[in-house]
This record gives sequence, structure tokens and C-alpha cells, in this order.
Amino acid sequence: MLIIGERINATSKRVAEAIGQRDASFLQELARQQVDAGAHYLDVNAGRGQGSEQEEVDLKWAIDTVQAATDVPLSIDSSDPRAIKAALAHYRGNAAIINSVNAEEGTLAALLPLALQHQADVIALTMDDSGVPKDVEGRLRACDRILERAAAYGVPLERIFLDPLALPLSVDTNQGMVTLRTLEQIRTRYPQAKTTLGLSNVSYGLPLRGVINRALLLMAMYVGLDSVILDPLDARLMAHIKAAQVVLGRDPFCKGYLNDYRKGRLRE
Amino acid sequence: MLIIGERINATSKRVAEAIGQRDASFLQELARQQVDAGAHYLDVNAGRGQGSEQEEVDLKWAIDTVQAATDVPLSIDSSDPRAIKAALAHYRGNAAIINSVNAEEGTLAALLPLALQHQADVIALTMDDSGVPKDVEGRLRACDRILERAAAYGVPLERIFLDPLALPLSVDTNQGMVTLRTLEQIRTRYPQAKTTLGLSNVSYGLPLRGVINRALLLMAMYVGLDSVILDPLDARLMAHIKAAQVVLGRDPFCKGYLNDYRKGRLRE
Repeated sequence: MLIIGERINATSKRVAEAIGQRDASFLQELARQQVDAGAHYLDVNAGRGQGSEQEEVDLKWAIDTVQAATDVPLSIDSSDPRAIKAALAHYRGNAAIINSVNAEEGTLAALLPLALQHQADVIALTMDDSGVPKDVEGRLRACDRILERAAAYGVPLERIFLDPLALPLSVDTNQGMVTLRTLEQIRTRYPQAKTTLGLSNVSYGLPLRGVINRALLLMAMYVGLDSVILDPLDARLMAHIKAAQVVLGRDPFCKGYLNDYRKGRLRE
Repeated sequence: MLIIGERINATSKRVAEAIGQRDASFLQELARQQVDAGAHYLDVNAGRGQGSEQEEVDLKWAIDTVQAATDVPLSIDSSDPRAIKAALAHYRGNAAIINSVNAEEGTLAALLPLALQHQADVIALTMDDSGVPKDVEGRLRACDRILERAAAYGVPLERIFLDPLALPLSVDTNQGMVTLRTLEQIRTRYPQAKTTLGLSNVSYGLPLRGVINRALLLMAMYVGLDSVILDPLDARLMAHIKAAQVVLGRDPFCKGYLNDYRKGRLRE
């Protein structure tokens, strides 16, 4: 399973300060730590709420800074297609992830051609401009729309990571099963497409959030989730992922689990 | 999901000593703690390796002792059908669990009539006298045999808890999926029958055993496991079970989860 490290995100006050002060060593240390902990990709979000032009400059600087410290590909994360476009042109290497599109036509028209041009993968949220559908069928309609547009633009479905979206269970306890059933249906209906999951929303408003996050993730892994966006410095969460790989028969002789244990990467 | 508390078991040295010394308060405290922590049933195993007659006497004493302290039904646990027979005759109430039978004809012939007579539930291991089948089909053949005999003896299939059996992943990493696929198949083929799982074998020989146990259990809960045999005093394991109930939409308004959290029963 692909781990996308979420820590370099300007919604974190400390990260926003580091970007504002051009504190390269802080960002690079956070990059290296996540890679050491097992991240296969690093998400980079530089949106500090200071406008589109500033975000573009900040994002390019953050990408340069992180790429100087690690070799892992990046997930370029912005709600502004112009910032993503500028960042992709700036990015070195050809395996970036665009984070993210949804079923809204404007975003698809802006970002799918870039995905084709840069051979980038694309995280696609199963929602549209009217918000997150509350039921499985609504989210699958968003998938239909996204994959139809991807095909029209010539982006291979293998490059699309559909996110079935986890909403807070504190607001609606049906939403866990909506997420998991959406994931099941995606696996059945669109076997070529990949899947991903932004995990942490699910536990918003509940105590012991990590336990709720792990419960959803382990079930999603059983259903066949391909990748996940999370904090790889959470050694307890990483331990459960590695244990799940063992249970699912994807870690021959438990070699990966035992290796990570010996390196102190796992926590009970 | 039904929680069967496993702690009153003479394979634990401390429990064996308490039974030998007729230390009622030790057993009763262990019973009350498990019920307070959320156990719906308590397993009682008094086999100290001192022969059949001694086990029968010990088991009857242990049952009396536990029943004097709590009202929850018991799972009467012995490899000796004679001890189970004597214990069932002695037991007060009519909702005991017989733990356990397997597909071996002698055990079925000895215990299924007792299940009928005492209206007891039965835990049935999906194995026979030649051992645990290594594949799904072998375990399902054991299920066929057990359920065919149950029907012949007039025991309702709703009273049979089939255990798909978890073998150590340290020996064979395929066994996690064998357990989960067996559970899926049981749910499809025998929708009337119940399921249970003895959890702790799966992690034998691996570090951070609790993490492995939780990974298997959460996936099994997604597949539809009805009950589990475990240590309810493990607050971390119980937290994951309660979180799984929330994710599966079985805890309206997260009431059970929040209540257990406030009572200090859950641990991150």
C-alpha cells in the first residue's frame, strides 16, 4: 500500500511559518522523517491564504526545498489549479500526484490536460461543486463523471486515485459504511482505477481519534484500498498498517513487519 | 458483537492456583472485572491436567463460584465431554455455551445431544481429528459436517458458533486470508449459523502481538463476525472493537463509544 505523507501542509501553523520564513531545514527535516518512517510520496501544500500569486511562489519554493532533501515523488496539493500548473512545470521528475480534482467540470478541464502532459497521477474526490454526496450512489455518480472526463482527455484510468471520502462519524454514524461500500463498488465497477483515502476527517469530534482512524483504515485495507494520505510519524498507525499487510498475506515471512519493528518504527 | 471473556482459564498459572486453593474471591474478582469491562459471556476452563474426575469437580466449583458473583451466562470450556456434561447439569440458567466441538464424530455425538437438552449454544472449531485444514475448502468441509450433524440431532443452526480458526502468521502468512475467506464463505453459505473467533493464536511468535490481533479482528468484524473470545481487560483491544462498531454504523450517535470512553474503559 502506498503511503502519502501529509505533514508538509500549510494548514499547520508551524509549516506555514517555515514557508513564510523560507526555513528550508525545517521542511527538509520533516520530509526526511516521513520518508524514514515509510512514506512513499510526500504531499506538499503551501496555501497560506495569502492569494494565488503568493501560493504559486511558495509552492515552487517548497517543492525545490523538499526535492533537494529526498528522492520520493511529491503529491502537489492545492485548491488552485494555477498553482498546480506552475508547480508541475517546475517539478523535476515525472511521477507527481495532482491533489486534487473532483467531479466539477472546471477543475477537470484545468487539471486533466496537465495530468496527461506531465504523466502525473491524480487524486479525485468523489464529490462535485454541490458538495459531498451523502450516499454511495451519489459518490459513484461523481466517479462516473470523473472517469468519463479522464477517458475523454486521454488520461489512463490507472492514473486516477478515487477517494471515497470519509466524513465525521460524530455527525452521521452511517458515513463509515458509506465510505466502505463506495470503496467496494469502485473496486468492482472500475477495476482499472486506483483508490486512496484521506483518513483523519472520520474521527473529527470524537475522543481517541487514532482508534477510530485505524478502525476505518484496516477495514478499507481489507476491501482493497491502494493508498492512503496520513501522518507517517504516527508509529501506532504505521504499526497497524504493517500488521494489516501481514494479515492480508502481503508481507512474506513477515519480513517487512519484523524489519520495521527492529528499526523502532512500530508502536503498540 | 458478543464478547466472551477468556480470563478464567486454568492454562493461566494464577487461575490454576486459585482453583486448586479454592480461592473464590480471586475468581469472582476476575469475573466482575471482565463483566465491568464489557464481557457478555465468561469462559470458564478448569483443566489443570490432573485428570478427568478432578476437572469435573473443579469445573463445578468454578461455575458455582463465578455464578455467585455475576449474572452473565458462561461458556463451559473443556476438552473432556464428561466434564462438560457434568458442568451443564450443575449450571443454573439455560443460556450456556459449550466450548467446544469440532467435526470429529465422537465429540459431536457426545455434545450435540447435551446442547439440545440444555438449550445451550455450541462453539464449533472448523477442524477434525486430523487437525486444522490449511485451506478454506477444508475448513468448510468441517463446517458441512458439523452443521449436518447438528441438524440430525435437532440442534438449531442459530445455536452453532463456527470458528474459522486463526493460525500463527509467523508460521504461514497465508493463514490470515484463509481465516477471513473462510468467515466470508460461512456467512454466505450458512447464513443461519453464527460465527466466533479465538483471536490470540494469530500473533504467536510475532512482536507487538496486540497490533496483529487487532488488525485481524477489525477485518473479521467488517466481514460480519458475531462474537469473539478475548481478554476484555485489554482496554486498547476493547477501544478498537467499540471504534469498529462506530465505523460499521452499529453505534447510533456514538453513544456506546462515548459512554465507554467516559467510564475509562477505552485506551488509545
